[in-house]
Amino acid sequence: MLKVIVVGLGPIGLNAAKTVAADKTLKLVGLVDIDPAKIGKSLNELLGAGKGGPKVVASIADAAKLGAKVAIVTTSSQFARVAATLRECMKHKMHVVSSCEEMAYPAYLNAALAKKIDAEAKSAKVALLGTGVNPGFVMDYLPVVLSSQVAKVTGVRAIRRVDAGTRRKPLQAKVGATMTKDQFYSLKAKNAIGHMGIAESVALIAAGLGRRVKKGSVKIGLEPLLAEKPIDSLLGRIEKGRVRGMQNTAHWNGEGLSIELDLIMALGTKEPYDRIEIDGPVPLKLQIEGGTPGDTATVAAMINGARVLPTATPGLHTMLTIPVCGGGGR
Amino acid sequence: MLKVIVVGLGPIGLNAAKTVAADKTLKLVGLVDIDPAKIGKSLNELLGAGKGGPKVVASIADAAKLGAKVAIVTTSSQFARVAATLRECMKHKMHVVSSCEEMAYPAYLNAALAKKIDAEAKSAKVALLGTGVNPGFVMDYLPVVLSSQVAKVTGVRAIRRVDAGTRRKPLQAKVGATMTKDQFYSLKAKNAIGHMGIAESVALIAAGLGRRVKKGSVKIGLEPLLAEKPIDSLLGRIEKGRVRGMQNTAHWNGEGLSIELDLIMALGTKEPYDRIEIDGPVPLKLQIEGGTPGDTATVAAMINGARVLPTATPGLHTMLTIPVCGGGGR
Repeated sequence: MLKVIVVGLGPIGLNAAKTVAADKTLKLVGLVDIDPAKIGKSLNELLGAGKGGPKVVASIADAAKLGAKVAIVTTSSQFARVAATLRECMKHKMHVVSSCEEMAYPAYLNAALAKKIDAEAKSAKVALLGTGVNPGFVMDYLPVVLSSQVAKVTGVRAIRRVDAGTRRKPLQAKVGATMTKDQFYSLKAKNAIGHMGIAESVALIAAGLGRRVKKGSVKIGLEPLLAEKPIDSLLGRIEKGRVRGMQNTAHWNGEGLSIELDLIMALGTKEPYDRIEIDGPVPLKLQIEGGTPGDTATVAAMINGARVLPTATPGLHTMLTIPVCGGGGR
Repeated sequence: MLKVIVVGLGPIGLNAAKTVAADKTLKLVGLVDIDPAKIGKSLNELLGAGKGGPKVVASIADAAKLGAKVAIVTTSSQFARVAATLRECMKHKMHVVSSCEEMAYPAYLNAALAKKIDAEAKSAKVALLGTGVNPGFVMDYLPVVLSSQVAKVTGVRAIRRVDAGTRRKPLQAKVGATMTKDQFYSLKAKNAIGHMGIAESVALIAAGLGRRVKKGSVKIGLEPLLAEKPIDSLLGRIEKGRVRGMQNTAHWNGEGLSIELDLIMALGTKEPYDRIEIDGPVPLKLQIEGGTPGDTATVAAMINGARVLPTATPGLHTMLTIPVCGGGGR
């Protein structure tokens, strides 16, 4: 059984820990978080399900003593912030899979650090991977997978429509639910709202299709979507005219290829779905009914990635460089 | 530019050669076929498009002199038959991508030979891959890709509906078009009709989900579909009651997982599509509108595979063991 620790016990980390604990092919041996309110508590206590399960410790070094081969890291969206955690895991010879959004394609924003971490992973003989549902699958890896069936791709479009009304409270807050339009735009001006990883998704698609996207060359669009009638949310009632969510777009064009991503995450989204369109001499169109479910799919993607890492070549990977991570849970 | 030869100039090989020749990132340097009617002819002559392009030679050794790094092999559906060609290519240090159906998962029928060829490829430092649209993508690799988003998969279903009326004549013949029911069953009894590779697809899915399918344990179903009214085909008119195509199914059940493949290839198929359903705690359903186009997608899959092989680890690969082969054609 593959021994796993989980570092970072927010909603995604906690869900990952629970899923690992329930899987017959994996063994959850440790939990790490820096929050004093969580340290010393067991998994079941954190889940509000009685006692039992490993207890939360404050340091990766302590958790590593239990023989873990892979660390699931869900601490930050920023690659530069996760780097210290990656290094600590490498020191203890653990492979790492992370939901860190920038790590889906770390070379886009931080090529120098990505190169350095890659070299360190190679010398530590471990594999590191950023993955999840978005970024990591639906708006980047899956389009690349589909593009394999087209001889000369001229365009890639990925469209994702998420009903934030079915998602957890922090997600509803993240898309701006209940804000005024002005509040949304003021956060936008401070770069404090918007889906993390959308530029990385574009860079990953481009790389998967043999192109290279330069830092800053992905054009990002971000607009609030306003309620046309009142909608109930986990943050309270969204009045007419208030923000019910956001539309985030990303676009890149070069070397004979156009990439367009279009993401809506909003309460009141009528028919959620994911859709991929590949343009070429014989185009292809794919749709996922109801869309890929955000949180559970991110957890699954990380856990299925964890299975593959011990057999992968050492280094800092993206979904482009490791073999497919099939759903091996039991 | 990656130098490529094509070995086997049936419809798929010819289409592959044409596509390689048109691609700005690849260079078609050689053509190989054993048919005396083809030897000495140029690609354009074979395509009925004037003169020009490399001429067909009879031996891989002659074609290899031109510095090819990758051979696209489209000579046989059987792995044991392709083995000699693989060995000849390995001797000349060429990577090989092949549409050979059994090679999509060669260990299913011929584990010993697969092991041997794998060792030979490793010592020759080349990578070998069987791929295509089916097997190789729509009913095996794509389901494994989708399963990555589900934590505990209990079932995989892949359904493909092909309108053979839009396909080339040999394909229409292959699905039994214009036969009587008795002719179909007599061919079935001799194992001379049915989609090649369907059992390999099941074995590939199982392996991708951490299971192992034993030789012969995949249950195959094969039935003719009969015309309810006359249908025109490239083989002549299909009268009412005659065969318009076939339904081929494959099923395996074990280790907490059920795999079901259901393929119809028939003239008169109303709405072609590909559909994948993953069962689990949070199920997923994906559909490709109109279905993945057979011949062009097989050619694209091979060519996009050819790009990845030189960077892959040496050995006999399947789609499970190499990184995603994105559409890098220009």
